[in-house]
Amino acid sequence: EFEKTIQAKKDSKGVAFDTELTARDLKELVEDYKKIIKDAKGTSFPEDPREQLRMSIDAVFGSWNNKRATAYRNLHDIPHNIGTAVNVQTMVFGNMGQTSGTGVAFTRDPSTGEDLLYGEYLINAQGEDVVAGIRTPQPIAKLEKEMPENFKLLIDIRNKLEDHYKDMQDLEFTIQEDVLYMLQTRTGKRTAAAALQIAVDMVDQGFIDIKTAVTRVEPQMLDQLLHKQLDKKAKEKTKVLTKGLPASPGAALGKVVFDADDAVEEAKNGNVILVRTETSPEDIQGMAVAQGILTARGGMTSHAAVVARGMGKCCVAGAEDIKVFEKKQYFQVNGTQVKKGDWITLDGSTGEVFTGQIPVVDPEIDENFETFMSWVNDFKRLGIRTNADTPKDSEVALGFGAEGIGLCRTEHMFFEGERIKSVRKMIVSSNEDERRKALMELLPMQRKDFYEIFKVMKGLPVTIRLLDPPLHEFLPTEEEDIMEIAKEMGMTFDELKSTITSLHEMNPMLGHRGCRLSITYPEIAEMQARAIFEAAADLTKEGYDVQPEVMVPLVGSLMEIKILKEKIISVADEVMNEKNLKFAYKIGTMIEVPRACLIADKIATEAEFFSFGTNDLTQMAYGFSRDDSGKFLPDYIEQGILAKDPFATLDIGGVGQLMKMGLEKGRKSREDLKVGICGEHGGDPKSIEFCHKIGMDYVSASPYRIPVARLAAAQAAITEESGQE
Amino acid sequence: EFEKTIQAKKDSKGVAFDTELTARDLKELVEDYKKIIKDAKGTSFPEDPREQLRMSIDAVFGSWNNKRATAYRNLHDIPHNIGTAVNVQTMVFGNMGQTSGTGVAFTRDPSTGEDLLYGEYLINAQGEDVVAGIRTPQPIAKLEKEMPENFKLLIDIRNKLEDHYKDMQDLEFTIQEDVLYMLQTRTGKRTAAAALQIAVDMVDQGFIDIKTAVTRVEPQMLDQLLHKQLDKKAKEKTKVLTKGLPASPGAALGKVVFDADDAVEEAKNGNVILVRTETSPEDIQGMAVAQGILTARGGMTSHAAVVARGMGKCCVAGAEDIKVFEKKQYFQVNGTQVKKGDWITLDGSTGEVFTGQIPVVDPEIDENFETFMSWVNDFKRLGIRTNADTPKDSEVALGFGAEGIGLCRTEHMFFEGERIKSVRKMIVSSNEDERRKALMELLPMQRKDFYEIFKVMKGLPVTIRLLDPPLHEFLPTEEEDIMEIAKEMGMTFDELKSTITSLHEMNPMLGHRGCRLSITYPEIAEMQARAIFEAAADLTKEGYDVQPEVMVPLVGSLMEIKILKEKIISVADEVMNEKNLKFAYKIGTMIEVPRACLIADKIATEAEFFSFGTNDLTQMAYGFSRDDSGKFLPDYIEQGILAKDPFATLDIGGVGQLMKMGLEKGRKSREDLKVGICGEHGGDPKSIEFCHKIGMDYVSASPYRIPVARLAAAQAAITEESGQE
Repeated sequence: EFEKTIQAKKDSKGVAFDTELTARDLKELVEDYKKIIKDAKGTSFPEDPREQLRMSIDAVFGSWNNKRATAYRNLHDIPHNIGTAVNVQTMVFGNMGQTSGTGVAFTRDPSTGEDLLYGEYLINAQGEDVVAGIRTPQPIAKLEKEMPENFKLLIDIRNKLEDHYKDMQDLEFTIQEDVLYMLQTRTGKRTAAAALQIAVDMVDQGFIDIKTAVTRVEPQMLDQLLHKQLDKKAKEKTKVLTKGLPASPGAALGKVVFDADDAVEEAKNGNVILVRTETSPEDIQGMAVAQGILTARGGMTSHAAVVARGMGKCCVAGAEDIKVFEKKQYFQVNGTQVKKGDWITLDGSTGEVFTGQIPVVDPEIDENFETFMSWVNDFKRLGIRTNADTPKDSEVALGFGAEGIGLCRTEHMFFEGERIKSVRKMIVSSNEDERRKALMELLPMQRKDFYEIFKVMKGLPVTIRLLDPPLHEFLPTEEEDIMEIAKEMGMTFDELKSTITSLHEMNPMLGHRGCRLSITYPEIAEMQARAIFEAAADLTKEGYDVQPEVMVPLVGSLMEIKILKEKIISVADEVMNEKNLKFAYKIGTMIEVPRACLIADKIATEAEFFSFGTNDLTQMAYGFSRDDSGKFLPDYIEQGILAKDPFATLDIGGVGQLMKMGLEKGRKSREDLKVGICGEHGGDPKSIEFCHKIGMDYVSASPYRIPVARLAAAQAAITEESGQE
Repeated sequence: EFEKTIQAKKDSKGVAFDTELTARDLKELVEDYKKIIKDAKGTSFPEDPREQLRMSIDAVFGSWNNKRATAYRNLHDIPHNIGTAVNVQTMVFGNMGQTSGTGVAFTRDPSTGEDLLYGEYLINAQGEDVVAGIRTPQPIAKLEKEMPENFKLLIDIRNKLEDHYKDMQDLEFTIQEDVLYMLQTRTGKRTAAAALQIAVDMVDQGFIDIKTAVTRVEPQMLDQLLHKQLDKKAKEKTKVLTKGLPASPGAALGKVVFDADDAVEEAKNGNVILVRTETSPEDIQGMAVAQGILTARGGMTSHAAVVARGMGKCCVAGAEDIKVFEKKQYFQVNGTQVKKGDWITLDGSTGEVFTGQIPVVDPEIDENFETFMSWVNDFKRLGIRTNADTPKDSEVALGFGAEGIGLCRTEHMFFEGERIKSVRKMIVSSNEDERRKALMELLPMQRKDFYEIFKVMKGLPVTIRLLDPPLHEFLPTEEEDIMEIAKEMGMTFDELKSTITSLHEMNPMLGHRGCRLSITYPEIAEMQARAIFEAAADLTKEGYDVQPEVMVPLVGSLMEIKILKEKIISVADEVMNEKNLKFAYKIGTMIEVPRACLIADKIATEAEFFSFGTNDLTQMAYGFSRDDSGKFLPDYIEQGILAKDPFATLDIGGVGQLMKMGLEKGRKSREDLKVGICGEHGGDPKSIEFCHKIGMDYVSASPYRIPVARLAAAQAAITEESGQE
């Protein structure tokens, strides 16, 4: 109502800005405003300044109980009875002529961290004018010439504030007729580069100790330093085509392709972006060669997102407005058609998609990064492992400081090169003998996988998860692929099609997968255990240290782990006998169905370690399919039903309770139970803090999240020590 | 080894039975046996009878720790330290000539319950001979003539035993040279009809009081009396074609049809059995007219199973060996092809499927049933409600003693007749206005549904669940149906197909369903609430009592129920204003995702009642899709990993923990929180006992399970009172 009235006044005067209204205009406006208030409230606007002040104060206090604030506190578990405060300040005026002015400043450069006062000011202006952009503010350095006394004073205050707060400050000031007034100071926001520079400088300058410095960089920020970024200015000028989830950070540009084979082919001639409705393990090769991945479906833990993060590759997932026509080789979004070969650019840190090419800035890991990260390990208690499926990933992770592998998925290995043929042979086998024969073909390849990973990891623990996904994921889905593969396998189309149909599941996430596969087909677990132990034996013989940890996925009953543990032990015994040597190993389980948390005391009588699979645990605790929740999760977050995507940040109130229960029950049965987390939350700072608090032994994150995880773990320990929440 | 040796001996003598061997043969055999023992154990078989006895006793005690017994105790949570007992008896011989004999008897007729000694005996025989079937035993009545003294003695003993045990006994006796020895007595197994007859008689005869009588009939048995049964003898002679899950009890025979429309058509000419790979809501009409339903996929809580139980209709689900070719109109199983129009017979109580026709025996609810059931209500504390979606179901349930509706699903209503068209119009709507228009078409029909149900229920509480299934369930899946329906709706095939594709979900069970639908499309909940409240208002005006309870499904966050409760209340207020009257109502939620149990204290600040949806809770706690678990659950049960199908009997150790937690947390926030269960477990005796124990207010079961539930509830209360476990 007020806005409408002032706009009408401005329109009638033919002016654009509030400041262009005359005193008379304003007087008239005040009368209009008073009328609005009287119409609405029934009483006149009070003339007594004390009464006005009291009402203003009441309004601020009253805001504590408005709907938005209440909902916000509910969501964030903030008690309703802690209250708020009101500051009452005398007004000062920067618009009282040429000896007055106003400005904002940072005590250090918030982009680079450089140690000098950085900011802008305007003579004869109020704060609003600096922001409104009517007049161009002057760089703060110029104030030294215009008002040398006040500039000196400002520098003194800057030094005093830094000395007091021991951190870079964001200041607002006003000069009224040559007198400098400080309006506000608060800790200043900064880029990742600046945060590191400031932290390192402040240690050098003796402002803070190393421990404090470690708390001064938000873990999430390190991502900016480890991934390509879009050129900011070029990006600002480009219209966003659509938005998806920021599934894997970084930036990528390339020509669009719609299938994995095309990606491999086209990548020979330049950058490609793989665009799919959703990806599946069949797309791995294409994802590996693409600069970035864009999917129309799937959430933060969809296949595309998980694999891309593992590869440290930019990915935008679940861009729901896009319709992808893979066969016709184009996608449609908001009226735009993007064809194969067209250029697009992705921002994996924001989820934005652009047509055309936006320049990309390479990441730089500088000296500050090295110095800062070297401090971190002294404070953290949590071990930091990595999720890695290949020797290459393992090496990257080691470089970032990983202390072991927390999750080595074996299914991706099943897709590589020729071995997918043996895998498919195994699946279509009609009896155990055939199945064992096909598995024997896989054995040497799996052994080599593990041999190489163990070797890279130089005696650090390596947790290998037995085959997890439902078998139908290894079979083709498109008619033409079925035709081709049937031919390759010497089957008829109908035979293969019928196997595929019989393996079809309504809800594969809740289907025949995880340890259920090994219960039905123990020979799969036996082959994998043999591959692990033969690799361990070979390396032991060569004088290497190996620490294999065999992880049984999706356990929900004591008997599952009991039966499979017995099998795995007997394979280990066999291998030790055959090779005539001994090696150490552990057998544990992934805790990822809610029931496993409820009966963790029983499971721990068999399992030597727990690793929380929080992706599945979140799916099942909420009943949210990670592949389908894109349809309603955005609504949920917009409406404030959920504060955050629970697949990105652990749902402490729900899933966290299950984890705490699982950990406590587990340790009750087995005091030295090793407990970790290998879900995607293992790389999320808030989640890591929770893992620290409940007493986990380690978190496991994808290689490019390792620095983030290390820093988050250190900060969690420091926070706990200091007794803060 | 022993068996092999005796078989060899018999073969060499050309005889068929052990008793045909001569004393010399047996002597030789003893030597052979001794040799086997010496070979195996290294020591000779002891000649000292005391030593032999001691070893026998040790063997029995030792059996306590064998693998099977240990596994059994683990599964059933029986402590390992309670031990077992050994009875030592002098041997008596029934084969010492014509004054000797042996027999088995029941103190009352185990088939009918008639109050007379019932059994068989053989002169000059050992117990084994009665069972072996070499000679035909004599009916016990004949003993009165052959050995009048001993018969009289037997009758005396029979009376003494009944007087002592106050129950029908199953006896074994031997007469050695005219002296009667009782070998064993134990409580006798009986049919349902006999159990009722005996219970009622024994009360009449003063043996037991009514409370004891109520504990004498297994609740599960009542099913036999409420459903058609296959003629036992005819069934025994027929070869089983295949076996599925006993999804809904009873028997059915009819001609096979493969789709719902055919079922409706063919049912006009006689009985049909609807055979489908799996059913979906589209099949409801066909299921309604069929005698029975057979599906190749799905578990105890699959769509087919749930709907069939609700209809009191025989169903065999998840017969995994069957391949159904709906289009080609036949199914294939174990080499047999069954075509449309062929007769098959189903036994829904065992899951057996037969080709051809087996005569069916109609159920008879006799006076004993009425008497017995009239006793039950005095003991139970739990309320018994029903799951019913139609006035007809509601009436059936009332007849069986239901005290309200615990679950009225609204989705089935969406399929009836013309309304599916409006539902589809709503789904394909591109904006809220269109959606509201389509919903307004549904409003009068939904209002009528509720009006009629409320009227039938005569003021008893009726819990109505808001729309739950994902919207794609209302759209066609087959190309030809899509073509037809697109035409009907004035859309192109591609348009409709594209809507269907966009609604496709990878894991619909964890997808966009339940209250998530109403969060995204609040107008759906609003229409349903309006239909409920307008019906309530109309009936109130007509002087009827109504108790609507609006149930929000699939709640996992406080804000979900909070937002929807507000909407529902505002609809109720509107309706009361419009109609100018007041009516009472409650708003509550279904607790069916694990997270809801974990944050039940928060949810209960809004929800006025909880109803545990244990089907979904079981699915999500275990991570078992009820539609897919048929692939591995049988293996799990066979290998002893699970003692029972957790969809049939509540998993007390896991899902039960979640329920207990949910109930306790809920009541902490809201002392008078009404708590019930409406999953399929609400009709399972073991599960009902658990519900009683944790202090629930009511269970809700399908109409034909109401007597079972009432009896189970009474027994649970009696057990608790008596302090037994």
